[in-house]
Amino acid sequence: MAAQTSYKSPGLSPGTLVYIGDKTHEPVRVSVVDYTPDTIEEVNDLTTDDLQSFLKRDSVDWISVSGIQDTAVVETIGQLCGLHPLTLEDIVNTHHRPKMDEFDDYFFLILKMPRLDPADGSLAMEHVCLVVGNGFLLSFQEAEGDMFSPIRARLRLSKGRIRRYGSDYLAYALLDMVVDHYFGVLEQVGEEIETLQESVLDHPETGTLSDIQKLRHQLVLLRKSIWPLREVLSSLLRGDSAFIDEKLLFYYQDVYDHVIHVADTVETNRDQMSGILDIYMSSVSIKMNEVMKVLTVIATLFIPLTFLAGVYGMNFTYMPELEWRYSYPVFWGTVLICLLLMLIWFRRKKWL
Amino acid sequence: MAAQTSYKSPGLSPGTLVYIGDKTHEPVRVSVVDYTPDTIEEVNDLTTDDLQSFLKRDSVDWISVSGIQDTAVVETIGQLCGLHPLTLEDIVNTHHRPKMDEFDDYFFLILKMPRLDPADGSLAMEHVCLVVGNGFLLSFQEAEGDMFSPIRARLRLSKGRIRRYGSDYLAYALLDMVVDHYFGVLEQVGEEIETLQESVLDHPETGTLSDIQKLRHQLVLLRKSIWPLREVLSSLLRGDSAFIDEKLLFYYQDVYDHVIHVADTVETNRDQMSGILDIYMSSVSIKMNEVMKVLTVIATLFIPLTFLAGVYGMNFTYMPELEWRYSYPVFWGTVLICLLLMLIWFRRKKWL
Amino acid sequence: MAAQTSYKSPGLSPGTLVYIGDKTHEPVRVSVVDYTPDTIEEVNDLTTDDLQSFLKRDSVDWISVSGIQDTAVVETIGQLCGLHPLTLEDIVNTHHRPKMDEFDDYFFLILKMPRLDPADGSLAMEHVCLVVGNGFLLSFQEAEGDMFSPIRARLRLSKGRIRRYGSDYLAYALLDMVVDHYFGVLEQVGEEIETLQESVLDHPETGTLSDIQKLRHQLVLLRKSIWPLREVLSSLLRGDSAFIDEKLLFYYQDVYDHVIHVADTVETNRDQMSGILDIYMSSVSIKMNEVMKVLTVIATLFIPLTFLAGVYGMNFTYMPELEWRYSYPVFWGTVLICLLLMLIWFRRKKWL
Amino acid sequence: MAAQTSYKSPGLSPGTLVYIGDKTHEPVRVSVVDYTPDTIEEVNDLTTDDLQSFLKRDSVDWISVSGIQDTAVVETIGQLCGLHPLTLEDIVNTHHRPKMDEFDDYFFLILKMPRLDPADGSLAMEHVCLVVGNGFLLSFQEAEGDMFSPIRARLRLSKGRIRRYGSDYLAYALLDMVVDHYFGVLEQVGEEIETLQESVLDHPETGTLSDIQKLRHQLVLLRKSIWPLREVLSSLLRGDSAFIDEKLLFYYQDVYDHVIHVADTVETNRDQMSGILDIYMSSVSIKMNEVMKVLTVIATLFIPLTFLAGVYGMNFTYMPELEWRYSYPVFWGTVLICLLLMLIWFRRKKWL
Amino acid sequence: MAAQTSYKSPGLSPGTLVYIGDKTHEPVRVSVVDYTPDTIEEVNDLTTDDLQSFLKRDSVDWISVSGIQDTAVVETIGQLCGLHPLTLEDIVNTHHRPKMDEFDDYFFLILKMPRLDPADGSLAMEHVCLVVGNGFLLSFQEAEGDMFSPIRARLRLSKGRIRRYGSDYLAYALLDMVVDHYFGVLEQVGEEIETLQESVLDHPETGTLSDIQKLRHQLVLLRKSIWPLREVLSSLLRGDSAFIDEKLLFYYQDVYDHVIHVADTVETNRDQMSGILDIYMSSVSIKMNEVMKVLTVIATLFIPLTFLAGVYGMNFTYMPELEWRYSYPVFWGTVLICLLLMLIWFRRKKWL
Repeated sequence: MAAQTSYKSPGLSPGTLVYIGDKTHEPVRVSVVDYTPDTIEEVNDLTTDDLQSFLKRDSVDWISVSGIQDTAVVETIGQLCGLHPLTLEDIVNTHHRPKMDEFDDYFFLILKMPRLDPADGSLAMEHVCLVVGNGFLLSFQEAEGDMFSPIRARLRLSKGRIRRYGSDYLAYALLDMVVDHYFGVLEQVGEEIETLQESVLDHPETGTLSDIQKLRHQLVLLRKSIWPLREVLSSLLRGDSAFIDEKLLFYYQDVYDHVIHVADTVETNRDQMSGILDIYMSSVSIKMNEVMKVLTVIATLFIPLTFLAGVYGMNFTYMPELEWRYSYPVFWGTVLICLLLMLIWFRRKKWL
Repeated sequence: MAAQTSYKSPGLSPGTLVYIGDKTHEPVRVSVVDYTPDTIEEVNDLTTDDLQSFLKRDSVDWISVSGIQDTAVVETIGQLCGLHPLTLEDIVNTHHRPKMDEFDDYFFLILKMPRLDPADGSLAMEHVCLVVGNGFLLSFQEAEGDMFSPIRARLRLSKGRIRRYGSDYLAYALLDMVVDHYFGVLEQVGEEIETLQESVLDHPETGTLSDIQKLRHQLVLLRKSIWPLREVLSSLLRGDSAFIDEKLLFYYQDVYDHVIHVADTVETNRDQMSGILDIYMSSVSIKMNEVMKVLTVIATLFIPLTFLAGVYGMNFTYMPELEWRYSYPVFWGTVLICLLLMLIWFRRKKWL
Repeated sequence: MAAQTSYKSPGLSPGTLVYIGDKTHEPVRVSVVDYTPDTIEEVNDLTTDDLQSFLKRDSVDWISVSGIQDTAVVETIGQLCGLHPLTLEDIVNTHHRPKMDEFDDYFFLILKMPRLDPADGSLAMEHVCLVVGNGFLLSFQEAEGDMFSPIRARLRLSKGRIRRYGSDYLAYALLDMVVDHYFGVLEQVGEEIETLQESVLDHPETGTLSDIQKLRHQLVLLRKSIWPLREVLSSLLRGDSAFIDEKLLFYYQDVYDHVIHVADTVETNRDQMSGILDIYMSSVSIKMNEVMKVLTVIATLFIPLTFLAGVYGMNFTYMPELEWRYSYPVFWGTVLICLLLMLIWFRRKKWL
Repeated sequence: MAAQTSYKSPGLSPGTLVYIGDKTHEPVRVSVVDYTPDTIEEVNDLTTDDLQSFLKRDSVDWISVSGIQDTAVVETIGQLCGLHPLTLEDIVNTHHRPKMDEFDDYFFLILKMPRLDPADGSLAMEHVCLVVGNGFLLSFQEAEGDMFSPIRARLRLSKGRIRRYGSDYLAYALLDMVVDHYFGVLEQVGEEIETLQESVLDHPETGTLSDIQKLRHQLVLLRKSIWPLREVLSSLLRGDSAFIDEKLLFYYQDVYDHVIHVADTVETNRDQMSGILDIYMSSVSIKMNEVMKVLTVIATLFIPLTFLAGVYGMNFTYMPELEWRYSYPVFWGTVLICLLLMLIWFRRKKWL
Repeated sequence: MAAQTSYKSPGLSPGTLVYIGDKTHEPVRVSVVDYTPDTIEEVNDLTTDDLQSFLKRDSVDWISVSGIQDTAVVETIGQLCGLHPLTLEDIVNTHHRPKMDEFDDYFFLILKMPRLDPADGSLAMEHVCLVVGNGFLLSFQEAEGDMFSPIRARLRLSKGRIRRYGSDYLAYALLDMVVDHYFGVLEQVGEEIETLQESVLDHPETGTLSDIQKLRHQLVLLRKSIWPLREVLSSLLRGDSAFIDEKLLFYYQDVYDHVIHVADTVETNRDQMSGILDIYMSSVSIKMNEVMKVLTVIATLFIPLTFLAGVYGMNFTYMPELEWRYSYPVFWGTVLICLLLMLIWFRRKKWL
């Protein structure tokens, strides 16, 4: 927690760029893909000057920035592309919730990309920003790692519609890809829930509780990132945006359907989780009941008999039964009959 | 789980047909019913060429495809009828939630058909897609098994309005039939809930918990498939569709009423299930209380008396009571009086 | 359950009349009240031919049908009055939820009339349908028993506005009466809840649980029938209907207020019921706590002392205390001091 | 409950005046305040004839009626002022929920005035009705007791705007006063909740449960009366009323803010109450846990040792240990070591 | 609580200034900052006359009042700036919820500023009011302590846009600062929740319950102050206000995004808290289960064996086993075998 800034100090001027998030020390990397239906050019580790020359061309430029903790770089790119200071402030605030802003020259989209750590199964939401203008698309992502490489591959191969349309189609392709990642994460979460559900009925343990906690937390994270996205897309589809070609609305509608599907699944999973906790509680109670029954049966069987044995262990001088020859067998007979009667009674009560 | 694909890998081009669902190896079968008010012709196991000739006629063509795991067949049919790639993608995604899309040449409907396995009572939701255009209706279903045969029979007999109207009435008939299946399923679910409700009060057991789990899961499945259908029909009735004759709106209104009825019943059942779980928990607590009372009564009665018997079992040389002639009867008298007093006390506390 | 049909088999043609509900074998009875502001004529056990002559007159005809399991009679009347097949289908489906349909020639209303069985306190919702056209009103009810007799009496006496207005006012009068029945039922339910509430705090028992179950179920039934009615009346008041005179809207507004009152009371009662279950659970826990305290006090007092007595009951040859003259009184002294200290300790912990 | 009518019998003609509420036998009292900006006249215990002469004047007349069980008086006043029969029916129905009706000549407001009985802290909601017409305001209240006397005093002193404006401002003043009473009641309820909250953590008892019940019930009552008022005022502010001067809307807006504040506080309190019940349950469980730990510690310490003592109390002829000289000290040594080990183990488990 | 007025007595004239809140005895302090893009002048501890001369200038005047319990000062300032009596009433009512009122000459904003007491971690919401008119901004705050000093510093340095724009931008800057304070508070609350979450799983204690209570209460406070703010800003953004320049809407939109972020976080935290309580309850149950298992294992192992030892401690004259030479070793053998069998059985049941 030490190396993390989680909020701007109150009273700072708006547009002051303060990186909010986990501090990493990876270098910032800027790369560009410049394409027309016929040509394509890719440059990695770009300088700002190169960038300017790319932006001047007529082709579509996809500038992707990975690593945003260096606010100076973000600021320079922002000025080149004419971004509003508030947009820049949001780009470097990795805690910002998904939203869409429409400006005069571009529209701005904040997304969250879910990522399950394969090592310990923890879920991280990566902050992804898209700025879509005429002839360019800026994508900002928190960490390095080329998560958009399938799209790059499609661009290179000119597969499908992707090179024929402009930056709005590219935005759709990236958006679609981010949403598709949710399905993978939900698949794994769903499997963990299944496993949990079975284990809860059989052997409820303290460990189960922390698993329940963990999954609930992951579902909360997913929910917090998918619901605002739903609103964003729904307002996009109501035709609020001047940057998206009407012909592409079918594609955005399709992404919207996927987002609703994800949101639905998250809700269903949350429902299931609360069901699992209920079952867990009931299961613990049932187990306790069983334990108590065993205790009660044993105690009820032997405590009175122990008293009886205690009586005949007393040292009174005058106890007529002690002398009687058949006392001992009669004692055992009484014991056995008592045991038998009580067993029958327990069986009737369904305690055995 | 092995033979199942449950999500498209992120970054694939839209319109890439990937079958999502349980893999089966049944062959795909295509059949057609071609009818006018006066004539009817049925062909099973159709080839693509036959299909083309049917589509050219003026009559209404109902093309039904069972088995959609063969994406090639779906693609061919899609091209013949002019379907959008995104529509084809949704047809082969059996996990897609119910929805309606309206295109220029057709409207597209995804439904879920509930099916209770008679063997183990598990519930499956079959993916059913309808494509309604001018003069044709395409129906896609996951598995073979002619679930629409009553409609075919009505077509053959020209019973009711069915042959007089076009593909929109046929769509209504199929939709109505799918919705009617929900009533049957809910009837059985309702009966299981009744049974559960009685058993919960009498003898709450661990087995009951897994029954509760199962029923809750089934209700979640039903809910997930009926709520989106409600929205679909409500937007249909607001007159959004150019493919449905105004005169048929009464019929669609009727289906809508049924869907609301189903949705209501599902909600009521969910409510009842959560009530059952509450009652179950309370019932377990009450049983525990009874068990504890028995234990406490027995222990309270005999533990002090055992102590008393223990005292007179001690081997001290000087214990005056031991010599006294009436010690033993006085001991028993004390014991009986104690027991009596405690029994009265327990009765007052309503523990016995 | 045997003599009951609870859903139409899927795939039947719409408008096929299938009676859905409990099968009874009472005969169907049709009666008519024909009135103008000045004249009134009543006929019971009408034939279809009589009906036709009544319908031709200029006066207002109230045709009431009790017993709807005979679908043939319903169909004949339907044809005489020009009812849509879907309307007839809904009339004989006693499971249908309340709704309003407006057709060209009439509007159609489904209501539920609550009835508490005086014998066992169970609640039944009777299916009541009203068809309101120009100059006639059809009322269908499930069972015989003239529940609308107060209205008939008002018609005969020409009390109030009832004969001066047309069938729309009559519809209001019937609707108002049905709604008034809810108040009576809620009054009784409310009293049962009060009783339950007191008994739950004093002596929570398993029997209480089934009472809670029963009342919750009754509230669910009431809720299911009153909420749709609320929607129906609210859409009526938005001026959707051509069959209701503007001047009567005040009266319908009044019924609407009553319906909201009923719905509110049902919600409050549901709230109270869930509160009662919480209190019940807490009460059971508290009782358990008391039981456990008694057990623990007794066990804690006597188990260590029993051990002590056991020690001096051992038969070791060399136990110096056994020979000592004052061992026995010292033993008793120790016992009493221990008991005293523990009692003080228990009192401090508020266990006694 | 005996002397109470709680619902109209079904089938009565609308406008039939039936008093619904607790029967009291206090006389009905009618008084009037007649004022212009310059003059003021007050008369108590008015007759109907006096009333008529007052109504004819140009001044503003505030006629207040306390005690509404005498339906004849209400009816006479109603006829003098031209009230609709349904309005009169609502005035004498003390169970009616808050609402607003606008008629051609007046608007009608039902309010609930909360009153905490200082003796037993029970909450009663008094039924208050206002009828606001041109130049007159009728106020009806259930019981005598001049709760509006501060307003009368302001009228007499011509303090503030009250005599300069018409009956709409007077209505505002009365409404504001009724709403202000909620703050006082909520203040007391809030204090009781605070007290409860502390007692729940320290010593949860059965008595606490009935306090929780009582407070929850009071909050339900408050909620039932404040929420409809919110709707009433919100529709008033949307400019639906012709009887309220535009210049006064600021004042009504202010009352609306207060009502929202009350509604918010009620919701927060409800939330808190459900939190208290949760805490109560947890607290009971924790206490139970402590009790069980004591029992288990004692039983675990002494039951095995008692067995050991029992063994050496056996009377077998050949038990070598019995003869051994050091058996007795070794026995005590074993006992002490066992106790010590177990105490260490319990401490590790944090049971001690 | 003694020195606190928490509600106006009912029936007071509107606009009567009654201070509602905790009584403090700090003096009221009025200061002004008067600025144009080029000049700036600051005066502290202003008199009313000075104020008047400042208000007459063309520059922007920021008048800040700290301490509002002196209603006379508030009233004088109110009259100078032409504030409505209801506005003044709301300024001195520190319990008033956040809201916005738009008047002809100014708009009025009530905010709540959260403050965590560093000593005991308790949360206080400070009442802050802004009045924004042409050329002036009034800010009222409850306690002294210059919380707006960063803004003053920015004004002095003419940093950013702040001196170039009018009072509407200043209002935005203050609003933004208040909202930024929520992030700091939420950060601390979030950390406490994290700590709690871990402690709950490991060692649930009674102390934990009061921590849960405290955090829930703080979240309720935050929620009560942030939700109305959300509505206020949303209505501001719908363009309802004439006092905010269109060019500034982007800035207000940004604050609105922050408010939604805060509201979201509060909801998520509430969710988490209710999850923590569930986990706490389960954890207590699990611990109880463990305790019970230990008790049951010990009792089940030793109670029957104690009975056996008791039997051979009886003093019957004729007990053949007593004489037998191998009785004692056979007794120990039996005991060991019994213990072994039971241990195996317990292990199977997973109790050990």
